[in-house]
Amino acid sequence: MSELLQQPVIKEIPPKGDDLSAWYTAVCIKAELVSYSPVRGCVVLRPYGYALWENLQKHLDARFKETGHENAYFPLLIPESLLTKEAQHVEGFAPEVAWVTHGGQEELTERLAIRPTSEVIIGTMYAQWVQSHRDLPILINQWCNVLRWEKATRPFLRTMEFLWQEGHTAHASAQEAREETLRMLDVYQDFAEHVAAVPVYAGVKSASERFPGAVETYSIEALMPDGKALQSATSHDLGQNFSRAYDITFTDTHNEIEYAYTTSWGMSWRMLGAVIMTHGDDRGLRLPPKLAPLEAVFVPIVKGGDDRALAAAKDLAARLRREGMRVKVDDRDESPGYRYSDWEMRGVPVRIEIGPRDVDAGTVVLVRRDKRKGEDGAKITVGHAVLGSVLREVLDQVEASLFEQATHFLREHTFVVTDRAEFFEKCRNRAGMIDAAWCGQPECEALVKAETGATTRNTRPLDGDELTCVACGEPATVRAYFAQSY
Amino acid sequence: MSELLQQPVIKEIPPKGDDLSAWYTAVCIKAELVSYSPVRGCVVLRPYGYALWENLQKHLDARFKETGHENAYFPLLIPESLLTKEAQHVEGFAPEVAWVTHGGQEELTERLAIRPTSEVIIGTMYAQWVQSHRDLPILINQWCNVLRWEKATRPFLRTMEFLWQEGHTAHASAQEAREETLRMLDVYQDFAEHVAAVPVYAGVKSASERFPGAVETYSIEALMPDGKALQSATSHDLGQNFSRAYDITFTDTHNEIEYAYTTSWGMSWRMLGAVIMTHGDDRGLRLPPKLAPLEAVFVPIVKGGDDRALAAAKDLAARLRREGMRVKVDDRDESPGYRYSDWEMRGVPVRIEIGPRDVDAGTVVLVRRDKRKGEDGAKITVGHAVLGSVLREVLDQVEASLFEQATHFLREHTFVVTDRAEFFEKCRNRAGMIDAAWCGQPECEALVKAETGATTRNTRPLDGDELTCVACGEPATVRAYFAQSY
Repeated sequence: MSELLQQPVIKEIPPKGDDLSAWYTAVCIKAELVSYSPVRGCVVLRPYGYALWENLQKHLDARFKETGHENAYFPLLIPESLLTKEAQHVEGFAPEVAWVTHGGQEELTERLAIRPTSEVIIGTMYAQWVQSHRDLPILINQWCNVLRWEKATRPFLRTMEFLWQEGHTAHASAQEAREETLRMLDVYQDFAEHVAAVPVYAGVKSASERFPGAVETYSIEALMPDGKALQSATSHDLGQNFSRAYDITFTDTHNEIEYAYTTSWGMSWRMLGAVIMTHGDDRGLRLPPKLAPLEAVFVPIVKGGDDRALAAAKDLAARLRREGMRVKVDDRDESPGYRYSDWEMRGVPVRIEIGPRDVDAGTVVLVRRDKRKGEDGAKITVGHAVLGSVLREVLDQVEASLFEQATHFLREHTFVVTDRAEFFEKCRNRAGMIDAAWCGQPECEALVKAETGATTRNTRPLDGDELTCVACGEPATVRAYFAQSY
Repeated sequence: MSELLQQPVIKEIPPKGDDLSAWYTAVCIKAELVSYSPVRGCVVLRPYGYALWENLQKHLDARFKETGHENAYFPLLIPESLLTKEAQHVEGFAPEVAWVTHGGQEELTERLAIRPTSEVIIGTMYAQWVQSHRDLPILINQWCNVLRWEKATRPFLRTMEFLWQEGHTAHASAQEAREETLRMLDVYQDFAEHVAAVPVYAGVKSASERFPGAVETYSIEALMPDGKALQSATSHDLGQNFSRAYDITFTDTHNEIEYAYTTSWGMSWRMLGAVIMTHGDDRGLRLPPKLAPLEAVFVPIVKGGDDRALAAAKDLAARLRREGMRVKVDDRDESPGYRYSDWEMRGVPVRIEIGPRDVDAGTVVLVRRDKRKGEDGAKITVGHAVLGSVLREVLDQVEASLFEQATHFLREHTFVVTDRAEFFEKCRNRAGMIDAAWCGQPECEALVKAETGATTRNTRPLDGDELTCVACGEPATVRAYFAQSY
């Protein structure tokens, strides 16, 4: 356990198309997003990776607050007897829990679980806080670390400890709780598409994919370049299951005592894994501007002692910073080519080149990371006076273009399938999101999974069409996206 | 462990002067800063308390970034064999560590400590990241939860789990590390005095009060109303102790391999305890404006169906929010008196009263929380058009006045003492900060502690004076503040 995992040394990033997994690990390490740690299953989120997380937090937190939520913090440790009150919940999470059994020199009389999620402790507190319908709704979010015992380690995608946010709300009616669940699903979709530039399919999880203890689970699902889906966030309508287990009751307007209706919803640093895989290319990361730690980097070129470009870059950068932009001047004593490819690898949306001739002309050259070399519009010459406004426009274009490229990929790899043989073949070959009518039976889903590795990612109504299940031929009840998944 | 701690029900806040401890607990609960939890030693930070923490984070984090630091995140769990590498460090922390021994159904071959602080895991990573002097300095901060096994629980002041930030830096020279240690001490003092409005004494800890494994520990110390000091932040020069234990080496400019010099520094939610105790009064909290979740609250008065005041308050609040201010309209169907004292109890710096007559006159009345009722300047009538600018000015005045009141208290309760009997008496009676010449000997400090309960809080140079130790009569080596402490 305590032996240092040998940090892979990454010389070159392998082509993304050859082996996505090798490419992914190489990019995460070489761009200094993460380091492997001596703790099994845990990675270190390095400053460049943490800055991505900070930007995710900023945009998501603003959306939570706009929708009336407040942040709070609940204990990390959960006594075993509390955890076991909701039967389905504990069954789902018990195999993944790390247990504290000793404090200092003392052996504990009751084991403490490190939170795998916080429904239990938060439900327990809500039971104390809620008495009357006037105490409802409670709309709370928590940013924290959680821990689920895992053997495998893949940065962002699968780690024992991870960072996330978990929203927990309590309401006076089933309808309000359902509305909240759907509102937060919308917030997640909006964030994924308009901040992370990752298009997703939103829908309802099948019973077998439901959160342990939920009445209904909704998710947003992104499609990765290898044809596997990545669940990017979930939103759960918990009905009265947790309020019954943890005794969250209130006196309603008719003076009757009722159980509250609760929800929970979460997005983790896994979303960053989706960003990396969706947008990256053979040269490395391509970061969507709103999440990028740096929106632009100046690479000044000093020639034969003429360092006016460096001075000009510093002036311009200071001006952009005053306008609230995230920029940096790369003044390292390295060749332009080295610095260009270094920042390309790190995915900075725009590189700003400036040499002595640009200084004479009062211009800089903006180079867009989202475009291929030589592609139309990849380089733009801009006068110093208008740099800020042009850069902001270009960043909007970069964001739109990343989203458009990803949306194009998702569309090209979404297949409406009605033929059974084609369905199994596409599921097996990881063709992408397989959109098909489905009976909704767990047995049918289990069969598809056993034969192809694919599961339902999420489902949506049939819209009145009378169809038969693509897999078993029984009457269909929903449309579902099937895919193999992370 | 898992039995619900009975949440104390607070009807009235007892007078602050009678029993600070009872007042403190009552205020923390009644203002909904925290709730006791069913986990021994752990409290829940409720939304109103968490908003204080968010504002602390915002101001402190900006200062860290201005001084060149970046945030990162390191694992929660530390393998036992790593923890034991620095002898003093493990000796200092082992009695306070919670141990994970099981993951899922599996018993671990090596125990994992929940971090009581992160020098060990961060030092281990720095050893991987640092090869050459060009990799230095590393300037990283982490916002996280830590856990130290404690029996007692006092919100913010003493809890098993707490939130904090811990900075960890590595440098190429002893001098640079010392400069960093002092720079961050300055940042903490600046934050305490100019954001939290809490005056502090900054200085060097004695050997016995030093962080386990440090070469030198610095602290800022505030004085609470009961005459006890509260250590509000610490900054440690770790010399090469941790780099030798965790093998953080680098090739210097002469191509020699050297051990790096490291520092660490931290402030926790304990600082909020200092804020609450320093500023609060018999009516409840008095929050410094920069930390206050709400800068001002409108209390509109609706009389006989005339609800124009409510509409006006909503308009004015919307305008202030657009200007970036944190304000709220209290439209609860409660009497003005009830709402006034509720927001007074919650410590909102300014209350904005508006009734039908104010609407007619185009004015509102600002009421300052820092002033006593009827005190000169406690109420100000302001026209709607200039509300934003006047409110900002008034908030500055509130902040200055809270700081001035606290500084006055600190000055009045700092005693320069040369007489031995007076020294022991003042230490025993918790008179405040006892400023005396001291020999610097651990035995002398231990004697003072045994006889009076007071310890050295921190020390500073004698400035060339030849003095004798107030306690033992030996030659003095430093001036020290003595006090009993939290």
